[in-house]
Amino acid sequence: MIKIVSSCLILFFLSVNLQAENGHSLWLRSQSSSPVSVICSKKSIVTEIARQELLNGWQGQPGASIKLIVKQDKQVKGDGYKLTPEGVQANTDLGVLYGVYDLLRHQQTGETINPGIFNPSYERRVLNHWDNQDGTIERGYAGRSIFWRNTKDSLNVTEADKKLWREYARANASVGINGAVLNNVNANADILTDVYLKRVKAIADEFRPYGVKVYLSAKFSAPSQVGGLKTCDPLDPTVIKWWQAKVKEIYAMIPDFGGFLVKANSEGQPGPQDYKRTHADGANMMADALKPYGGIVMWRAFVYSASDNDRAKQAYEEFLPLDGQFRDNVIIQVKNGPVDFQPREPFSPLFGAMKKTSLMPEVQITQEYLGHSIHLVFLSTMWEEFLKSETYQEGEGSTVARCTDGSLFPQKHTAIAGVANVGLDVNWCGHQFAQSNWYAFGRLAWDNKLTSDQIADEWLKLTFKRNVAETTDWQDNFLKPVKQMMLDSREAAVNYMMPLGLHHIMSANEHYGPGPWWAPKRMRKDWTPPYYHQADTVGVGFDRTHTGSDAVSQYHEPLHTLFDNIQTCPDEYLLWFHHVPWSFKMKNGCTLWNELCYRYNKGLHQVRDFQKIWDKVQPYVDGERFVQVQSKLRSQSRNAQLWKDGCLLYFQQFSKMPIPYEIERPVNNLEYLIRNDTTRHQNYEQ
Amino acid sequence: MIKIVSSCLILFFLSVNLQAENGHSLWLRSQSSSPVSVICSKKSIVTEIARQELLNGWQGQPGASIKLIVKQDKQVKGDGYKLTPEGVQANTDLGVLYGVYDLLRHQQTGETINPGIFNPSYERRVLNHWDNQDGTIERGYAGRSIFWRNTKDSLNVTEADKKLWREYARANASVGINGAVLNNVNANADILTDVYLKRVKAIADEFRPYGVKVYLSAKFSAPSQVGGLKTCDPLDPTVIKWWQAKVKEIYAMIPDFGGFLVKANSEGQPGPQDYKRTHADGANMMADALKPYGGIVMWRAFVYSASDNDRAKQAYEEFLPLDGQFRDNVIIQVKNGPVDFQPREPFSPLFGAMKKTSLMPEVQITQEYLGHSIHLVFLSTMWEEFLKSETYQEGEGSTVARCTDGSLFPQKHTAIAGVANVGLDVNWCGHQFAQSNWYAFGRLAWDNKLTSDQIADEWLKLTFKRNVAETTDWQDNFLKPVKQMMLDSREAAVNYMMPLGLHHIMSANEHYGPGPWWAPKRMRKDWTPPYYHQADTVGVGFDRTHTGSDAVSQYHEPLHTLFDNIQTCPDEYLLWFHHVPWSFKMKNGCTLWNELCYRYNKGLHQVRDFQKIWDKVQPYVDGERFVQVQSKLRSQSRNAQLWKDGCLLYFQQFSKMPIPYEIERPVNNLEYLIRNDTTRHQNYEQ
Repeated sequence: MIKIVSSCLILFFLSVNLQAENGHSLWLRSQSSSPVSVICSKKSIVTEIARQELLNGWQGQPGASIKLIVKQDKQVKGDGYKLTPEGVQANTDLGVLYGVYDLLRHQQTGETINPGIFNPSYERRVLNHWDNQDGTIERGYAGRSIFWRNTKDSLNVTEADKKLWREYARANASVGINGAVLNNVNANADILTDVYLKRVKAIADEFRPYGVKVYLSAKFSAPSQVGGLKTCDPLDPTVIKWWQAKVKEIYAMIPDFGGFLVKANSEGQPGPQDYKRTHADGANMMADALKPYGGIVMWRAFVYSASDNDRAKQAYEEFLPLDGQFRDNVIIQVKNGPVDFQPREPFSPLFGAMKKTSLMPEVQITQEYLGHSIHLVFLSTMWEEFLKSETYQEGEGSTVARCTDGSLFPQKHTAIAGVANVGLDVNWCGHQFAQSNWYAFGRLAWDNKLTSDQIADEWLKLTFKRNVAETTDWQDNFLKPVKQMMLDSREAAVNYMMPLGLHHIMSANEHYGPGPWWAPKRMRKDWTPPYYHQADTVGVGFDRTHTGSDAVSQYHEPLHTLFDNIQTCPDEYLLWFHHVPWSFKMKNGCTLWNELCYRYNKGLHQVRDFQKIWDKVQPYVDGERFVQVQSKLRSQSRNAQLWKDGCLLYFQQFSKMPIPYEIERPVNNLEYLIRNDTTRHQNYEQ
Repeated sequence: MIKIVSSCLILFFLSVNLQAENGHSLWLRSQSSSPVSVICSKKSIVTEIARQELLNGWQGQPGASIKLIVKQDKQVKGDGYKLTPEGVQANTDLGVLYGVYDLLRHQQTGETINPGIFNPSYERRVLNHWDNQDGTIERGYAGRSIFWRNTKDSLNVTEADKKLWREYARANASVGINGAVLNNVNANADILTDVYLKRVKAIADEFRPYGVKVYLSAKFSAPSQVGGLKTCDPLDPTVIKWWQAKVKEIYAMIPDFGGFLVKANSEGQPGPQDYKRTHADGANMMADALKPYGGIVMWRAFVYSASDNDRAKQAYEEFLPLDGQFRDNVIIQVKNGPVDFQPREPFSPLFGAMKKTSLMPEVQITQEYLGHSIHLVFLSTMWEEFLKSETYQEGEGSTVARCTDGSLFPQKHTAIAGVANVGLDVNWCGHQFAQSNWYAFGRLAWDNKLTSDQIADEWLKLTFKRNVAETTDWQDNFLKPVKQMMLDSREAAVNYMMPLGLHHIMSANEHYGPGPWWAPKRMRKDWTPPYYHQADTVGVGFDRTHTGSDAVSQYHEPLHTLFDNIQTCPDEYLLWFHHVPWSFKMKNGCTLWNELCYRYNKGLHQVRDFQKIWDKVQPYVDGERFVQVQSKLRSQSRNAQLWKDGCLLYFQQFSKMPIPYEIERPVNNLEYLIRNDTTRHQNYEQ
């Protein structure tokens, strides 16, 4: 803690000189290595990478001899591998590489390596990049796209491009991610034209040695937009032919192309319903075109219309009737919750309900609703909560994880997607700690039974250990408190943003600060926060019980009954499912209003505690990363206060109840927050 | 506390409709009155006002009979009065009026009226308005000038003008203020031209019935600027003649004109030194011109040059040698502290040291350095501390009050000045609680032995009582906590702005937020905060001991020795007099650095407590004033955090010591605060 400012400056210059700790190395920081000899049963680009990683990063017995064996083993599945006392064995070259990364991770974290077989939970572990071809990124907070540029020569591939793509692919491979959708789901049809496909091929070429397949978001209207056809009707023979030809063209360039991601008939995007066809009609047409090459279609279930009574019900209502009608190389990509990546949602009831269709979870790594790259929020706990949610669809143990990874239902393909948080920022993710979310997504995609505790533990050791053998002091005074901060961070964000089941009350457009008041006239109601919080003088919350929208009925028993009853509904989903009177007595004896005040206040104080924790670990952190995180935490603290003030003062207009005396008073005026809603983003970060 | 927002809205509309509690009535809110008969020994405009005030505001025995008697009594001095069981007696009509206001104040506050004689501490109790002729006010935070406008017809006097001036004069009279300087000390010579003097006369005509004399700030260069002379040398016969003629002209229009206030050879203003004459030469020349009419010169001692080694010493060094050289109708106007109206300064060592010259204290009611009209800071405690400061110049009991009120030294005239905080804002002062500072100045000018407790008590009762007979409940739950808040408020501001003797570390120009870093190249050093705080790696504070600038030697023993010794120097003046090592052990055992952290943190938390106190008294306050004060307190709380963050992070660069763990972390980055120094005022108030 001594010499905060000046020592930070000194360390800053040191680290700039050393190009060392600016975060660009992610969790793959170069470590001193011991000599090791590596014997490889098969020589390929992939196994050569594995060998080099071992030579560069070996921290086991000096002079040890390691065998890398590619050999069929029925117990090893897909990209899986087997760790043996002699080395790594896998069915594929890539499996060997994954095994090597696992081995090295164990050495670097100091964990014991237990021999055994390690198979991935999902076949396809895919990042979705919402990158536009002009280089911007929708909901990206870490600089511009690493794939696309807005300059005229944007399609020329440079050596710097290739180096960055290889670094990116290596980072993905090191945590088991094997696919990347290179463009925004709100797609530009141009991506399917030759000029762009050439760059896609160049990217694929750099990714290939690391086992990362490229996918593209395909615009459903592409046959018209870039193919000159008069229709895009999926049952029209010319359309079918167009897609077949396009797919053939792609595979000629990229033989291991992964397939298409499609957002159709959703938020204004074109789709089969424009031609009175179903989602199945559309998806199957594309799937048929991809099938000969092993490609898949990831078809998003993120659909809702302004006219329906409850947006949370619509994906289920629209897709469940189609169960069984999709080709086996179609996977329906379903967001974790029924609305849209909110700080907390119950799981989407589609999981487990669609039994004859492959479903893949879509989570959001980029923190659209969770503080962008300003707030420190470790999302692993959110995803763990989601994956371990009980659907009860096949009795107890029917978790979302098991409903999607093939262990409950016989799926031809399994997959999981995460919306990437990667950009051109030197540290990739904007916030040093946002890297942990990229890491966590990969680790959970590989093993959906991992705990967030373990993931945070691994990531912190890989990312912040100063030398191979850290002491107990480091464990006690850095690892332990910082890990706890990470594990608490998502609940803190829920507390200061949307506690007790509140959702979608953020400011418009930017989705950053509070905006429960935002409701311009003539705006689609389901795009305004009041639609979701329903605050009035009686109470607050969306009535989704049997007397309300009855969204509860989409959940399998006993959840249906549990959620439907205000007395048994868990606190964290209370306002998701119920319109609750302000004076309702919570399980802890508080009124709803007071509890809401306490939660917001607690969230703010949690962030203040994070600031203390971080300041205290300064001696253990290099200067540049320390100062960056310290500065971001300050912004998070200021902004948590904005959330608390904005939401409490707004809801107080309805509750007409006082903020409990022991709670710190608001320091912002509601009128000011409302008036400055659209410009306030300028003050997000200092 | 129930129904904060909506009830505020309701009350807001109610009070707007009733034109009731917007604060315009100050401490003179109309009360229901009982019948009373008033017998007056002398009929004049002044006694008629006194009679009317009694008829409108009587709350004593219904049907009582009150006598107002103008009669010479040697025990009654100047504007003093005698309260008897029958009524009020005084030497002058004005004395009767003051007695009536006192009588009514006692009735309204419910205090017992003890018969006795009540003489004023000072003969001249004057407000200095820093109003420019274009209607702006230097350091004014309550709207534009009530005297001047920037429109073309600005010199036309309207009925609305006259009404406002009468209201202003009445407010002054009610607390004993009997003079007002109508224009800025940084004077525009035009004020002495006929066209402006006509408006001055109109103002004087409205003030006269309330006993408020008008004064003008005279620019020393006026003979050249508006008189066409080639010199302004005070010993030049043409100059002397010009001033004599000008004074004659003024008195022909305004027979009771008070005199001139002069800022000469100070901060670029012209003065006698421009002609190698002394301040005495200049002041005496003007005094001689005024003498035949009973006018006085208030000559400011606020002088300092950039070349000297310690600004705090200069007024003393320049004026003490002139002691005894001034005419008896010159009063040297000395700011309370040696620098400039800082949140806390020791008293100016001129007080008591100039024994053969009349000195008048100048305090600042407008909160230039104390949060403008945004922060709630009751200044009475500061002035009480100042007036009760022991100078020891004539042994124990030689307080500043006694050194200036004529009780220690035989002064022909005594006076006290306060820089006004009045503007066109409907509530006069911008902040409802800033009215209390106007009130307190008047009350202390009348009786410099009053306690701040009593003044706050009176003001709160007069300003916030909802009806004549408030209950114990009101006393316990409103009066007591709010009074305590007022009494603590200045110390809170010292804590979050400039604790432990720090001074002049505010942001440039605006003098609002923190700016300890502000030091542009080529800027006069004595206008930059680093000149005053002297922070370096060793410590912080201005060394004014015998090894430093030796300003301590300007104080009479035992203060000289007390202040000179770091071990005995009071904490509140420590960094004023000493450059103290960061690790210096304070009297309470803390290091200086830690104590600085605790003080800043305490200040912030004090403001947060004020917010709680105010929210809790909501049931006792009308809606409009409640919401206004609540909103200002929110701004004060945000800005106290800016002060704490800015100062601690800035000084930490030098101390290189950690902020104690138990203290809330900064939420702003130093670089941001520095970068946005000049624009940040936009965020002061929401």
